[in-house]
Amino acid sequence: MWSSDEMTVLRGFEKPTGFHDLPPQLVRKKRRIEDRVRMVFENWGYEEVLTPALEFAETVGKASAISEQKMFKCIDRQGNTLVLRPDLTAPIARMTASVLKNEPLPLRLSYHASVFRAQENEAGRNAEFYQSGVELIGNASSTADAEVIALAVEALQNCQIDSFQLAIGHEALLDGLLRECIRNESSIQKLKEQLSQRNMVGFWEALQELDINYQAKKELLYLFQLRSCKEQLTSVRKLSETTQVLKAADQLEEVWRQLEVYGIDHYCVLDFGLIGRIGYYTGVYFEGYSSSLGFPLLSGGRYDSLLTCFHRNLPATGFALDVNRMMEVSQLECEKRERFVICYTDHLYEKAIKKAVALRKQGKVVVLDQISKPSETSKETILSDSHVIWIV
Amino acid sequence: MWSSDEMTVLRGFEKPTGFHDLPPQLVRKKRRIEDRVRMVFENWGYEEVLTPALEFAETVGKASAISEQKMFKCIDRQGNTLVLRPDLTAPIARMTASVLKNEPLPLRLSYHASVFRAQENEAGRNAEFYQSGVELIGNASSTADAEVIALAVEALQNCQIDSFQLAIGHEALLDGLLRECIRNESSIQKLKEQLSQRNMVGFWEALQELDINYQAKKELLYLFQLRSCKEQLTSVRKLSETTQVLKAADQLEEVWRQLEVYGIDHYCVLDFGLIGRIGYYTGVYFEGYSSSLGFPLLSGGRYDSLLTCFHRNLPATGFALDVNRMMEVSQLECEKRERFVICYTDHLYEKAIKKAVALRKQGKVVVLDQISKPSETSKETILSDSHVIWIV
Repeated sequence: MWSSDEMTVLRGFEKPTGFHDLPPQLVRKKRRIEDRVRMVFENWGYEEVLTPALEFAETVGKASAISEQKMFKCIDRQGNTLVLRPDLTAPIARMTASVLKNEPLPLRLSYHASVFRAQENEAGRNAEFYQSGVELIGNASSTADAEVIALAVEALQNCQIDSFQLAIGHEALLDGLLRECIRNESSIQKLKEQLSQRNMVGFWEALQELDINYQAKKELLYLFQLRSCKEQLTSVRKLSETTQVLKAADQLEEVWRQLEVYGIDHYCVLDFGLIGRIGYYTGVYFEGYSSSLGFPLLSGGRYDSLLTCFHRNLPATGFALDVNRMMEVSQLECEKRERFVICYTDHLYEKAIKKAVALRKQGKVVVLDQISKPSETSKETILSDSHVIWIV
Repeated sequence: MWSSDEMTVLRGFEKPTGFHDLPPQLVRKKRRIEDRVRMVFENWGYEEVLTPALEFAETVGKASAISEQKMFKCIDRQGNTLVLRPDLTAPIARMTASVLKNEPLPLRLSYHASVFRAQENEAGRNAEFYQSGVELIGNASSTADAEVIALAVEALQNCQIDSFQLAIGHEALLDGLLRECIRNESSIQKLKEQLSQRNMVGFWEALQELDINYQAKKELLYLFQLRSCKEQLTSVRKLSETTQVLKAADQLEEVWRQLEVYGIDHYCVLDFGLIGRIGYYTGVYFEGYSSSLGFPLLSGGRYDSLLTCFHRNLPATGFALDVNRMMEVSQLECEKRERFVICYTDHLYEKAIKKAVALRKQGKVVVLDQISKPSETSKETILSDSHVIWIV
């Protein structure tokens, strides 16, 4: 055990579990990625909004569909329970029902902000994530689904992500296929749970426990494991007779056709077993992966029920990029600007300041470095990327 | 009283006290100001860092010197008390003692981030502020004080703040002058409290209660009320005999001389009664005001003891700009980029998408707007700043 004094010393250098400092080189990378992404969002007509870091637990907290023990909670001075925003989609839905309620539809909104999820000690996961994302609100058509997928692809391209792929599924299609052979609600939930954890072994085991015919089980496993292109929709249509599944298949086909027009279908695969980790998705759902990272760089999809929580019955779709993961895989270079360092001895400060003022007026980066005697080796002289000007 | 259902409806449109949504036009203004400020910070060699939104209450929370009931607190999953950062200076001091501990001194760091202060219901004040600031760590000289003041002036100039003034005081000078005629510690604290609230009437009343001669009281009031230039330092030297005051006067004079060299002394006044609202300042302290706003746009100064909380005994100075207030007074225009809106009917989506892809490749802002029939008046056609392209 540490003494309380030692504990204090230790803590002085520590951050809470899952939180990190970004030193200059990482902030430069983050800025570079966010600037590139922002430029793309802007080119597509998405306007940036900003919501508070804290929201009411009972409204936005509930709507965000993140499990309660994953949220950071605090009490304000009026005694209300607040949560640190666990996502941006729910706050923007709230905003759509308040400050933006008179804006013409559809709304194209974007954001660049932190979200928060409490983590177990051992998890080694981030508790604060940087997200950049968009929401397209008030358009129910497949056009909107295709637009946000195409936008996601352009954002990844613009950040020089080496090789990436978007997997596209459909919540209602998956749900319909399961319901066609399984009646028991809790079994359906259990199967979805396994799928949402990308655990195909767990999914197969859960299927095995069910009293349905073996052929149907094998077909489900085959269909949900497959990463395919639009031809596979034909097999889905053969398997199913329900309107829900057939309508979803039509939507996926329509989206795919538009992705071909955008010229980006070679980045995409269909994945009928893909399901969102957050509960509010209702239609087309997608995730983006780079070949060098096992976790998604982005996820998003259609959420047509969320806005009813805020008494606005509007269809919507969108996605969020995980900026931390983008920083890991992006090949973007962060060029440092040319720097001038003026090393001067104390009594020559007038000359040094005037030189600095003049150089900065020319748009140069200038650091003033006072040294005690002419022979002193300044920190700056060892920085290879700086031009040193001696005033001694 | 509202029923709990009505309360929920109401809350759906509300934010917690002191929190706000920024719609697109305000985010544009915020970005414009932060970009301008960041450019200046960068030109002066200050490198941006980013710290977590949550910190340990017992370390950074304590060091930040914000009163405890003004902090938002929460408990993490390990049972630690965390606070939403109430300032950036304390977290950056922590960072200086950890991830930056091997970097050569002096450190020139900058930040652009939110800080949080819990507010009473009736106060009408922000609970989340956007701050942009710098810290210059490891330089004890007046050169450093003058540098951050000059940097503050250039940041304000670059944001087109119409007319502004910087008031410059000195914590040790003020402290020394009070101690010269008052021995009682609690009386000194009471007088400082009144000064920190800019309450000269309260200051005079508190002085009146003290058993010191009337002439000394009048001299203190006169000196602390005065906004003056460097000649006034002569009167201070005549009034005082203590080393603390004389040394502080020398420092102020030295700073002033350098501000003259920077060519910005006409923006500055000396204010011997000026004292920081946060407790960690030890030397030169300054605030910036615009003529159109009663609250400071920026504040900062020297804090030579704070880093010892993190076991690094380094002198430091810096300042923070209040971006919310800058947004109120800045004359910067937010030019919107030229927009193209492609209004198309459903079956012509292929032509519309191809047109959009082509225009975006030319760097244009393009919105795709699907309409149900050619005669439909689209939302976009009523936006005067858009060029409408019909594909019907």
